[in-house]
Amino acid sequence: MPHTQHEFANRTANSCRRFHWIPSVQHSPCRPRINVETYEGQYSANKASEVQKRTFGSAATQIQRNPAYSELTSDDVSYFKSILGDNGVIQDEDRITVANVDWMGKYRGASQLLLLPKSSVEVSKILSYCNTRRLAVVPQGGNTGLVGGSVPVYDEVIVSLAGMNKIISFDNVNGILTCEAGCVLENLSTFVENEGCIMPLDLGAKGSCHIGGNISTNAGGLRFIRYGSLHGNVLGLEAVLADGTILDMLTTLRKDNTGYDLKHLFIGSEGSLGVVTKISVLTPAKLPSTNVAFLSCNDYTSCQKLLLAARRNLGEILSAFEFMDNNCIDLAMRHLEGVQNPLPASQTKFYVLIETTGSDESYDKTKLEAFLLRSMEDGLVTDGVIAQDISQASNFWRIREGISEASVKVGAVHKYDLSIPVEKLYDIVEEMRSRLGGKAEVLGYGHLGDGNLHLNILSSKYDNNILAQIEPFVYEWTSAQRGSISAEHGLGLMKAEKIHFSKSPEAVQLMGSIKKLLDPNLILNPYKVLPQSVL
Amino acid sequence: MPHTQHEFANRTANSCRRFHWIPSVQHSPCRPRINVETYEGQYSANKASEVQKRTFGSAATQIQRNPAYSELTSDDVSYFKSILGDNGVIQDEDRITVANVDWMGKYRGASQLLLLPKSSVEVSKILSYCNTRRLAVVPQGGNTGLVGGSVPVYDEVIVSLAGMNKIISFDNVNGILTCEAGCVLENLSTFVENEGCIMPLDLGAKGSCHIGGNISTNAGGLRFIRYGSLHGNVLGLEAVLADGTILDMLTTLRKDNTGYDLKHLFIGSEGSLGVVTKISVLTPAKLPSTNVAFLSCNDYTSCQKLLLAARRNLGEILSAFEFMDNNCIDLAMRHLEGVQNPLPASQTKFYVLIETTGSDESYDKTKLEAFLLRSMEDGLVTDGVIAQDISQASNFWRIREGISEASVKVGAVHKYDLSIPVEKLYDIVEEMRSRLGGKAEVLGYGHLGDGNLHLNILSSKYDNNILAQIEPFVYEWTSAQRGSISAEHGLGLMKAEKIHFSKSPEAVQLMGSIKKLLDPNLILNPYKVLPQSVL
Repeated sequence: MPHTQHEFANRTANSCRRFHWIPSVQHSPCRPRINVETYEGQYSANKASEVQKRTFGSAATQIQRNPAYSELTSDDVSYFKSILGDNGVIQDEDRITVANVDWMGKYRGASQLLLLPKSSVEVSKILSYCNTRRLAVVPQGGNTGLVGGSVPVYDEVIVSLAGMNKIISFDNVNGILTCEAGCVLENLSTFVENEGCIMPLDLGAKGSCHIGGNISTNAGGLRFIRYGSLHGNVLGLEAVLADGTILDMLTTLRKDNTGYDLKHLFIGSEGSLGVVTKISVLTPAKLPSTNVAFLSCNDYTSCQKLLLAARRNLGEILSAFEFMDNNCIDLAMRHLEGVQNPLPASQTKFYVLIETTGSDESYDKTKLEAFLLRSMEDGLVTDGVIAQDISQASNFWRIREGISEASVKVGAVHKYDLSIPVEKLYDIVEEMRSRLGGKAEVLGYGHLGDGNLHLNILSSKYDNNILAQIEPFVYEWTSAQRGSISAEHGLGLMKAEKIHFSKSPEAVQLMGSIKKLLDPNLILNPYKVLPQSVL
Repeated sequence: MPHTQHEFANRTANSCRRFHWIPSVQHSPCRPRINVETYEGQYSANKASEVQKRTFGSAATQIQRNPAYSELTSDDVSYFKSILGDNGVIQDEDRITVANVDWMGKYRGASQLLLLPKSSVEVSKILSYCNTRRLAVVPQGGNTGLVGGSVPVYDEVIVSLAGMNKIISFDNVNGILTCEAGCVLENLSTFVENEGCIMPLDLGAKGSCHIGGNISTNAGGLRFIRYGSLHGNVLGLEAVLADGTILDMLTTLRKDNTGYDLKHLFIGSEGSLGVVTKISVLTPAKLPSTNVAFLSCNDYTSCQKLLLAARRNLGEILSAFEFMDNNCIDLAMRHLEGVQNPLPASQTKFYVLIETTGSDESYDKTKLEAFLLRSMEDGLVTDGVIAQDISQASNFWRIREGISEASVKVGAVHKYDLSIPVEKLYDIVEEMRSRLGGKAEVLGYGHLGDGNLHLNILSSKYDNNILAQIEPFVYEWTSAQRGSISAEHGLGLMKAEKIHFSKSPEAVQLMGSIKKLLDPNLILNPYKVLPQSVL
């Protein structure tokens, strides 16, 4: 299989296996800023009404404003000014408008009030008052969510955590960071990297998203395969309950088996059980050596076997295992500027990006190279290259992460973020292709190492006939595999009524009971996460 | 600092740094079976009454049987036989006696009935019936707990999960094991090791404890520093609620953000919110290379700095970081047969055991050696040896793990299992020494990498004056450091009334509300975990 094209000048002719080394990437590669998976990134703000219609299409009825909630009065505003001062109470139309709309311009509320508390005590006073007055509240972090969870649906009071952005302490023996919830993830990353550590999560929105929002949505992101879920990395939390109770669970202990571990209720409950105000989190040691390989596989079975082999053989240095089908690569090459396929054009159906991160450059190189050579000998990999500098590594990542950006350039795209057992993960892509015939292009890619598929369905324009072929089939199919209809984005407003596709009726019922226990007046982030029928 | 003694024949004279290599330990070392920390292991069964008095000493009153619970009737027994068959309903006195007493012989209940369900449906029928009849229930796994959580206090019906011990599936691409709760941990370890994986937890009781009990108590153990908490490793659960509802949360997905992650309520709640019946858990890849070093440090500050350096420099291969003070070593040498100090007698105050586990033997060796040489040059380590075969590695581990066994040979020992921020962790040992003067010997050792101190106070016999010097001071001091009075053992019956030392009143109150929500008749594992006052 000779190369017909050759992108890298330093690729030598005698490279029998097509794997090469030059000085490895030091520290983290200058990875291009990754776009958050833009579920409806293709919609412009002026199409919001169309989107809303689609969003609520599968619910029995459009959600109505809950009349149990009071409407804001000037007395309410005066009270908030008395506790927060004038600067903490925002009524300026421009600033309110920004906070009313999510970053995709898809979800748009009509709040008249944005509050900016500076302390947990102020958050407590706000919630206590709102609870007594039956004023609904939406807690807001960086407002980078993808499911309409961080903006009002109607006239909820917006409580932004942006003013609570202090780092409280850093224990550099154990790598434990304690900070307020409004800290921007990227700022925390910079801070802990100066201390020789990294945050256990990284995601495209890091320049805007707050750590409190990350925790409230149980954000996944790029380091999940290596460092796992926030349920394992968050050590302590402080949260304010709907009635204003400040719940202090802010330990910095790795081990604590004294009673129920309540903090987990607030990780991933999307601000509907309480407002996270402070956190403590484990920060792993920063490792100096990163390598990235871009490989081709003939079939999905080989991708799976390669994943297994990578887990076994790369073991402790494996830090990413991403896959893309050929349609994704074609799309990226057509629509992304300056991006090149590092492998020659071929009949290859699948591509895999493997990243390793470790503490020893030369060792990691040798290990990855040996692994890849063995994988070729075993027939799992048909071709591949290893990035030989930061620029090449960035190009490899750019292909993977540019797929989402490229997909919105085609015209219309339906995007699904699914968790499916790895052995079944690609079946839905093929089923969808067969189902749609030539009416739309179907792409599959994602975090294979985490069992997380991004299913994209592209056509030249939105067509309800195509949508009817996709939904509810995609949810029903995922449900039948015991998969998740939201791997990492949460439910928010968009999928609150679809929870039953991934959770049993008994579980949803218990969630409703817990919601009512912690927030009996349902003031926190209404209309979201749970179906209205259980509340 | 010349060696005056030399334990290892193959230790060469020209070893300037006293670090040596011979063929490294392959696979897991034949580590001696580790004793579970035996809190009152020194008590014989016939001293149970004395122990009970001490156990309840700090509670306002001895806990009384709750008269709201019904007493067992022959009709109840008939019903249970109708659903479980005769073999599932045990009334034989010998078998009941075994299940009524914990393995230390410290806690002794008076149950008249042991039930052995074979399925979740049978568990459901049992609980539904008991809930209606107000019969109290104690769920029982391997009955290896240390705080009286797994045996009846009075006449609770014992529901043993021992009959539910099937492996349901193993996904060897992702390393995900699904099994019933009654599987013995060691059997699961053997099973997944044959598949090239390991369980994410390992503990001394593994030959008896059940995975369901591990999860219900959020067991810590030896792999915690590397693989973290069960909250991060357990992917799914099935639990049966007090009213018989089977709560299916048994996904095998790494990512699932659809609603509240309810499984965390059942991890560490000691069977008081539901009976865990099935689990799915991540099993990391089994790595072939293990190395163990035994080192001495002059002071506790050096131990802390060494931990920091190990996290930074050993990074992804660090798998244990244990410390012991000199008193521990002296005790072990006096009381453990066949154990030798691998380092020459010296004025060293602290010893550290470091273990690495990785995928490449020669690399791991080189890395550990380089790290240790640097640590000596930096003055953090004064002396040290690296195990050169399995026997030496086992000897190093035997010292660390034999301390508990040795401590009970002195006469009387008070044992505390504390989580304390690492920088303060040894202060309590020194304060306790100063507080007790010469009246008792005070030892400190434990999982420094996890901030988990085992504080042991030894005297020739039990003396209430000594106890009065220790308690409640040790709890108050730990509380003042925002530490945990139970790092990994749980609260059970022993510390249910002491939860306020580690948890805020608001948190304890919310725990009580959740208990009452899930188990309104309080039939599950009564008198334990939470103080009676909140129920």
